[in-house]
Amino acid sequence: MKKIALTGIKPTGIPHIGNYLGAIKPALKLSETCEARYFIADYHALNACKDPVELKKMTVEIASAWLACGLDPKNTLFYRQSDVPETFELLTILMAFTPKGLMNRAHAYKAMVQNNLEANKDPDDGVNMGLFTYPVLMAADILLFDTDFVPVGTDQFQHIEMAQDIAQSFNYVYKTQALKIPQPIAQEDTKTVVGLDGRKMSKSYNNTIPMFCTEKELKKLIMSIVTNSQTIEEPKDPDTSNIFALYKNFATPEQVENMRARYLKGGLGWGQAKQELFEVINAELKPIRERYYYWMNHQEDIWNALKEGSQKARLLASQKIAQLRKIIGID
Amino acid sequence: MKKIALTGIKPTGIPHIGNYLGAIKPALKLSETCEARYFIADYHALNACKDPVELKKMTVEIASAWLACGLDPKNTLFYRQSDVPETFELLTILMAFTPKGLMNRAHAYKAMVQNNLEANKDPDDGVNMGLFTYPVLMAADILLFDTDFVPVGTDQFQHIEMAQDIAQSFNYVYKTQALKIPQPIAQEDTKTVVGLDGRKMSKSYNNTIPMFCTEKELKKLIMSIVTNSQTIEEPKDPDTSNIFALYKNFATPEQVENMRARYLKGGLGWGQAKQELFEVINAELKPIRERYYYWMNHQEDIWNALKEGSQKARLLASQKIAQLRKIIGID
Repeated sequence: MKKIALTGIKPTGIPHIGNYLGAIKPALKLSETCEARYFIADYHALNACKDPVELKKMTVEIASAWLACGLDPKNTLFYRQSDVPETFELLTILMAFTPKGLMNRAHAYKAMVQNNLEANKDPDDGVNMGLFTYPVLMAADILLFDTDFVPVGTDQFQHIEMAQDIAQSFNYVYKTQALKIPQPIAQEDTKTVVGLDGRKMSKSYNNTIPMFCTEKELKKLIMSIVTNSQTIEEPKDPDTSNIFALYKNFATPEQVENMRARYLKGGLGWGQAKQELFEVINAELKPIRERYYYWMNHQEDIWNALKEGSQKARLLASQKIAQLRKIIGID
Repeated sequence: MKKIALTGIKPTGIPHIGNYLGAIKPALKLSETCEARYFIADYHALNACKDPVELKKMTVEIASAWLACGLDPKNTLFYRQSDVPETFELLTILMAFTPKGLMNRAHAYKAMVQNNLEANKDPDDGVNMGLFTYPVLMAADILLFDTDFVPVGTDQFQHIEMAQDIAQSFNYVYKTQALKIPQPIAQEDTKTVVGLDGRKMSKSYNNTIPMFCTEKELKKLIMSIVTNSQTIEEPKDPDTSNIFALYKNFATPEQVENMRARYLKGGLGWGQAKQELFEVINAELKPIRERYYYWMNHQEDIWNALKEGSQKARLLASQKIAQLRKIIGID
């Protein structure tokens, strides 16, 4: 029997190639060997986004992006969190098994408190309960679907550990194994993709390459990558080059070896290296970009796909909730 | 159009006459002039009760008690919180509009922190997230049903204010009036019913008169009421007598006036006063007690009544959630 992998996709705008390499590609690869359950975490997004038009737009964009990258709703359960209300009932149940101290120790919350203290503000300034209880909602997302694996970045490891703790507490109290203990899967090396300025690619650094910009924009961005001032003739170190680091993520192993040799030999200018980087990135992104715009022009189909997925998800979810309600004496 | 009154009934065991006079009777009276929506708050109870058999038993008992006291499911929407999952979706929505600082200031939470500090424990020792987020769930219960009035004891006033704050925050953000601002209704004088030992009647003081004990037990309990050592002949002060205080809650105004005169005149012994107290209490409780045991012997009918009520409640709740989802951009 296939293991179950679950991923929450937070609608936070058009993904960049850091998201693509670090999250989307690995998740889609995982869906080849696992029973994949991937959902748009729209209620998680509500904590930060109170603009209804924007929230809906971001939902459509992120769904289009994943579909364009190859998510196949026939093989992967693809749904909206908000369309599976059993999630919120499980959230309510899990609250009774979550010590407040566990939430106090959440990294994201502690970081906000630290920032507030440094700014001489109330420790909880600007913290809403959605943020504070985020790990419990995430635990509900995961535990509702008997998840074996959750592919996550290292920054999310703690959340999986919390889901484990909460599930174990429930199971212990009722002497049951009803909640499966999920395991995190660390995302691969590609998870830290280098940005245009050499730092980690991140929206907050404004150094990203968006996935769906035009060829022209893509080329312009790549040409803007910061390099050192070595001449064309000089041999170059591929392992300290941002351009090479990005190239490795898109080129074939043969192309990578060949490029490494050309770096070391000298005679390869940065302009040429950028041009070839553009070509491999564009070759991979072009069909995805086209599919993205196809989906964005067929939004009704996206909603239908999500609706269909949500119906399937609810079948599973309602069985799980019925099982849990029986255990706790609310049936 | 009738105003909407809502009350959550926490299943915490068989009610005593303090609950009857302070909560049940006023709520049933209110249901004569308002559109009443009264629900069994079973998920609130889960925070404290992790025994499934006990939780179910307490649910049946409290439902029987209210039905026996005269709650008519034909006129009052009578449902289980757990059967209206829209509640938990609204909880999730409201989290994003609840500052954590608001919860930090909740009296019940602060009292636990204070106790922990005094015992040299971690401030959040033994606090679970169900308890900490209790006011948000209560706000969801209330706001889901466009509630005008919530009859509450003074200890619950703060929770209603929190529900108001959260609703106002939501309405402000979306420039809407979608969430009706609820008002607390202070429960009447009877809310502090005196117990057998002269203190407030409360399970924690072990000084209660349970509603459904046998006549024999009821008499024994009343005979155990603490009095002073005045002789039969002495005139007595009705206004400092526990027996008179209880008598007032059950006797007619004429009976009360008559009894007052007999206290003041002298010649009324405590034994006689207790006997007459027993008679008025028993006269009121007897038919209720009989109906209670009738319902307890027809539990299937209770579940059916709750199920029917829950279906009606879900009709209202799903409309409300649909309206709110549209507003926040999750539809």
